Amino acid sequence: MAEYISKGRKARKSYGFDDVALVPGDLTYDIKEVDASWKIGDLEFDVPIIAAAMDGVVNVHFAREFSKRGGFAVLNLDGISSRFEDLSSIYERMLSSKREEVTSVIQEIYKEPIKEELVEKSISSIKEGGNFCAVSSVPQNAERFAEIAESAGADLFIVQSTVTTARHISKRYKALDFDKFCSKLKIPVIIGNCVTYKTTLELMKTGAAAILVGIGPGAACTTRQVLGIGVPQITATGDAAAARDYYFKKTGKYVPIITDGGMSTGGDIAKAIAAGADAVMVGSAFAKTKESPAPGYHWGMATSSENLPRGTLIQVGPICTLDEMLTGPAWLDDGTQNLLGALRLSMASVGADSIKRMQLTELIIAPSIKTEGKVQQRQQRVGMGK
Amino acid sequence: MAEYISKGRKARKSYGFDDVALVPGDLTYDIKEVDASWKIGDLEFDVPIIAAAMDGVVNVHFAREFSKRGGFAVLNLDGISSRFEDLSSIYERMLSSKREEVTSVIQEIYKEPIKEELVEKSISSIKEGGNFCAVSSVPQNAERFAEIAESAGADLFIVQSTVTTARHISKRYKALDFDKFCSKLKIPVIIGNCVTYKTTLELMKTGAAAILVGIGPGAACTTRQVLGIGVPQITATGDAAAARDYYFKKTGKYVPIITDGGMSTGGDIAKAIAAGADAVMVGSAFAKTKESPAPGYHWGMATSSENLPRGTLIQVGPICTLDEMLTGPAWLDDGTQNLLGALRLSMASVGADSIKRMQLTELIIAPSIKTEGKVQQRQQRVGMGK
Amino acid sequence: MAEYISKGRKARKSYGFDDVALVPGDLTYDIKEVDASWKIGDLEFDVPIIAAAMDGVVNVHFAREFSKRGGFAVLNLDGISSRFEDLSSIYERMLSSKREEVTSVIQEIYKEPIKEELVEKSISSIKEGGNFCAVSSVPQNAERFAEIAESAGADLFIVQSTVTTARHISKRYKALDFDKFCSKLKIPVIIGNCVTYKTTLELMKTGAAAILVGIGPGAACTTRQVLGIGVPQITATGDAAAARDYYFKKTGKYVPIITDGGMSTGGDIAKAIAAGADAVMVGSAFAKTKESPAPGYHWGMATSSENLPRGTLIQVGPICTLDEMLTGPAWLDDGTQNLLGALRLSMASVGADSIKRMQLTELIIAPSIKTEGKVQQRQQRVGMGK
Amino acid sequence: MAEYISKGRKARKSYGFDDVALVPGDLTYDIKEVDASWKIGDLEFDVPIIAAAMDGVVNVHFAREFSKRGGFAVLNLDGISSRFEDLSSIYERMLSSKREEVTSVIQEIYKEPIKEELVEKSISSIKEGGNFCAVSSVPQNAERFAEIAESAGADLFIVQSTVTTARHISKRYKALDFDKFCSKLKIPVIIGNCVTYKTTLELMKTGAAAILVGIGPGAACTTRQVLGIGVPQITATGDAAAARDYYFKKTGKYVPIITDGGMSTGGDIAKAIAAGADAVMVGSAFAKTKESPAPGYHWGMATSSENLPRGTLIQVGPICTLDEMLTGPAWLDDGTQNLLGALRLSMASVGADSIKRMQLTELIIAPSIKTEGKVQQRQQRVGMGK
Repeated sequence: MAEYISKGRKARKSYGFDDVALVPGDLTYDIKEVDASWKIGDLEFDVPIIAAAMDGVVNVHFAREFSKRGGFAVLNLDGISSRFEDLSSIYERMLSSKREEVTSVIQEIYKEPIKEELVEKSISSIKEGGNFCAVSSVPQNAERFAEIAESAGADLFIVQSTVTTARHISKRYKALDFDKFCSKLKIPVIIGNCVTYKTTLELMKTGAAAILVGIGPGAACTTRQVLGIGVPQITATGDAAAARDYYFKKTGKYVPIITDGGMSTGGDIAKAIAAGADAVMVGSAFAKTKESPAPGYHWGMATSSENLPRGTLIQVGPICTLDEMLTGPAWLDDGTQNLLGALRLSMASVGADSIKRMQLTELIIAPSIKTEGKVQQRQQRVGMGK
Repeated sequence: MAEYISKGRKARKSYGFDDVALVPGDLTYDIKEVDASWKIGDLEFDVPIIAAAMDGVVNVHFAREFSKRGGFAVLNLDGISSRFEDLSSIYERMLSSKREEVTSVIQEIYKEPIKEELVEKSISSIKEGGNFCAVSSVPQNAERFAEIAESAGADLFIVQSTVTTARHISKRYKALDFDKFCSKLKIPVIIGNCVTYKTTLELMKTGAAAILVGIGPGAACTTRQVLGIGVPQITATGDAAAARDYYFKKTGKYVPIITDGGMSTGGDIAKAIAAGADAVMVGSAFAKTKESPAPGYHWGMATSSENLPRGTLIQVGPICTLDEMLTGPAWLDDGTQNLLGALRLSMASVGADSIKRMQLTELIIAPSIKTEGKVQQRQQRVGMGK
Repeated sequence: MAEYISKGRKARKSYGFDDVALVPGDLTYDIKEVDASWKIGDLEFDVPIIAAAMDGVVNVHFAREFSKRGGFAVLNLDGISSRFEDLSSIYERMLSSKREEVTSVIQEIYKEPIKEELVEKSISSIKEGGNFCAVSSVPQNAERFAEIAESAGADLFIVQSTVTTARHISKRYKALDFDKFCSKLKIPVIIGNCVTYKTTLELMKTGAAAILVGIGPGAACTTRQVLGIGVPQITATGDAAAARDYYFKKTGKYVPIITDGGMSTGGDIAKAIAAGADAVMVGSAFAKTKESPAPGYHWGMATSSENLPRGTLIQVGPICTLDEMLTGPAWLDDGTQNLLGALRLSMASVGADSIKRMQLTELIIAPSIKTEGKVQQRQQRVGMGK
Repeated sequence: MAEYISKGRKARKSYGFDDVALVPGDLTYDIKEVDASWKIGDLEFDVPIIAAAMDGVVNVHFAREFSKRGGFAVLNLDGISSRFEDLSSIYERMLSSKREEVTSVIQEIYKEPIKEELVEKSISSIKEGGNFCAVSSVPQNAERFAEIAESAGADLFIVQSTVTTARHISKRYKALDFDKFCSKLKIPVIIGNCVTYKTTLELMKTGAAAILVGIGPGAACTTRQVLGIGVPQITATGDAAAARDYYFKKTGKYVPIITDGGMSTGGDIAKAIAAGADAVMVGSAFAKTKESPAPGYHWGMATSSENLPRGTLIQVGPICTLDEMLTGPAWLDDGTQNLLGALRLSMASVGADSIKRMQLTELIIAPSIKTEGKVQQRQQRVGMGK
């Protein structure tokens, strides 16, 4: 609903994960009856959770492990895997830096040029043993990497930047022509990120196989703090899903919506799908697993914008294995583990036996904040493993 | 009221305890004029507060003590009382564990098989001296325990799981048929938990003697964080109460509504009843009493879901006796003690001399958060007993 | 505005101090043009701020000092001034208690019986030198104290309890008949506290000279936490003011509204008057002055309810003199000092040169919470006196 | 939208920076295509960010440095630059004070009389080398300083007080006649601060060259806490912009709106312009630069009101150079650095290639609070330079 925010000017109200909750169903399912699989075109995946193209989340080893569990992790072709042969020494260099030097160390690391042979090698390594290989790059590098990726055997190519539109204006350089790019590549192309109905539709028309949704989802997001830009994910996902449904009705082509960003619990993932998503993309959660590149550490990558470099290093774990992160058992009861298990139980509890059904379940606007209680509860806890 | 949360999609607004407040009456009562009694069928209870079926709250001793005060506590037949003869050594084992081992110790304890003779023995022990005996189990164990419970003399049987509906679909096992279950048992059956008008009505039709209301009531609830599912209790209670009133009008049978979960103060309890409840179920508050199983400790029990085990141990007290918790005097002024006394004084102050009248008192939507002030106030306090 | 909180049930939205802000005027005044005086019947006061009848705020000495500054402080006849001859030893006993004993020490102190000769003596002492003397008691003691107070020379009698209505039902005792009480006493009677339009009107009809407004104003209020009862002060004040205006229109008698409770800054006081109040009653702020009974300490008094005793001792200062608290200069910039000066400057800035005009100034609903910023700002502060 | 806050009384809802977010565009620009310049009459500036007239932000040296970068900083003629010849010893005196003395030291410093020769000298020094010189004073001193300033070569005069209206009533002194003042001065006059449509219009009519908008923008603002007065900046800016557009339509004269106060990130600045501002005025951010008067320190200046003195000293840095603050690179990713760079990238991302276009971009109402998450995230950060 729109409200007046100043004389003569209206703004629409938007909603994020913490503003809504799922309403239990009048019918429930045994969790074993629940099918959480989803498809991109003809490709079918058991796990509707994608590991995000972040260097602290996915390297060759992690991508393989993730593929074996029925989903896929995305390797960032602009990242350090394409810059260094020996990644372990890079991880060590970051982790052993002094507090005051970390930022510049990370910024230094990302100045190392990308080597095309490393791009090729990474992809081949993931493919070994028949794993599914998804890779990504920013629009600026997409044409350069796409050919290499395709010929090296990649199964999926993702073009991703913070804010992506079908129309980008520059006098300095030629913007990526998504129509041409999608039709030229033989493997499916996922494009993102966007948040509006209109841009979702325009990107679908370029031939995208799926759309990534999410820009500045939370109040504490860098995009929201630095640029002021952001749309909470429930609204963004719902709008994109409406575009998908309209596009499917008009063309018969179903282009799945992948909610990317802002989810930290199984509950958030369940809400994203209930809001209309076909799958979700998650980063930090997987950085917390023992299988992640530098287990327990996560960091901001260099972005395409030289004006807004990031270089923070965060310790986030490791708190469990990838299996425990996906299917449990969880030893924390805050929803940050057993993400797939929680999603499936959530679906069972609201009476949705498939992702398609889950997209139609009832959401309620529920007050989200009771800071004090939350804090107290945590402080009193005894006997947690950390 | 419903609002658009995304293009073409509406969600209803819901309310929790912290979102509302009671409006004082234009008429007030002497507290002695207030009658807080309530009934389940022909059973009448002076205390409209039930002690929840949690192992950190109720054991045989606690159930007896609670019954003597005019209410009832529910013994969890799936819990440790049914698994171990010598509970005191179990409590000791938990409490003496190291921080990092507690979770696995608790999970280990709940792997001990249930012994039917212990179920029987617990019930008989509670009944000794004519106490009221209420027991509970999850739907999966309900048929197995119901017979034992009834023959051992239990007065009330509660079938309880996180999300309960009249219709549950599984190919692996036969879901509990509530119709059959209720008609077969001679003692009244309480079923829960649910939160919607429709499910409340469907469960009433199966023959339930009362309905437990409450799923993921607070933002910090495990169910809400893990599964994304939850309805704030004022809305859930009001909806269930509307179903009760409709059912009573149609059938002449009055099936009381018991609000379960999310209440930590006398004020919360007063609000639950003002929202339409006949009684409330409370857990943590009683774990804080000196009469509780492991005085001052509370822990997450094993649930029926192997995917989402809980095993946290929290120190919550002990802060007072059961008498002080129910009827004061309170030495804390935050509403966490003297729960029944506070409810009665609240009723007197809004001009309600019975639970039925209290259900009709005016609620107001009141802003709930002023974190900083709250925190400051507490920090400055001098001379509190702890 | 009312919203649905559950099926078929509506609740009205209410507003507190933190939810609103004053809108600056299109015309401003020199602060010297502002007249903040107000009247109760024929009694006129320069200071529209009353010191609350709390033992940590007002004793004989404080009441005299306050009267000299053009306002009045209320002596609590149910308090320790009426129980002990030598108060200084009582203050010392409290302050020298160990943390864990304070509550019981305070509770013990309030068990000392009230002595009528002390009541008389206190009033005479305040009156010495021509000071204004206002006293208060709970309804139960009102008839007993009123006669003594009047004959000892008190100028104003306040009957005050947490929730007061014109109609109170009890079989045990005879409720105070406000009609009789007001007409029998020759000095004006102020009655409180109430929060609704209807009760305000009913109390006005009994002959009250002014009405105290405020029950459970804030989310952290004891009344709200313990009993669940409370109406935020902007709404409560506005409703009571509407009753006052209606009553004045019908009868020609102007019964001022005094907002009592929940104000901690000059801004809150300005908002209370903008919401419709004629004056405000403030407690904690004055406990912080060097002139207060036990400078810098404040405590919960015994109330009439034995079920909900209070006995907490809080250190709140001393932070300044009474003069600084009323008219500055303030050395803190958070609004907690210079209350009258701030009110006057606020009036000047919104273009209100009298209390009557201030009651008509525009209020805006303004978002109230930005916890983190607030906290950060404070932590970084250097060089504050404490 | 207006809502009832009490019986018969409505209040309008208002919005601040944290309540809204920008919606990404369906078209994006290369950041090099973005033009962020703006004009006051014929004066054109590349930088739409003005450094506020605060003694902890601007002195002669800082004003020169800022002018060289294409914008302007305002020198406060009521401040210490006009009171002391040797400022460095004043800074040292403040910074070396003990915690408990700082407030009185600052208050003492501001008692030093203003010397007209210092006013003149400061302006001449800024002008040296052709810099742009903007100066300010409170209305009381405006006539006295304006002549000196103009003859000393100042380019712009700002009359600024907390709440400014075209009509001010006093019997003690003659209020500044803005009509006369503006027509008498040859250099443009900026007037502020105001927040309403009506006052903005009235001030424009007096001949103001631009209007400063902002009174008590945030919940933690001194003005809001002390006086209760304040309008969140999105609403205030939008209302003032509506007045500007109306005035332009009627008169053909475009009087720019400058949002002043409450912005701490690039995102906030982007939102202010999206709400309708032509430029913004920022204080604390520049106090954090190495070029600021007392690098890293910021303090409350003496105001015109003797009743509400301020004298707090806050350490805020230094965290970077002025260049880094304006155009990066930023080493913090929270938006508090690279303010102009962030604004330009924000404009590029929402598809606005000019300030005029940015004023029309879509805003969304987005939930602003997720305190806990924010806090946690920060605590876990490793390797930040401070």
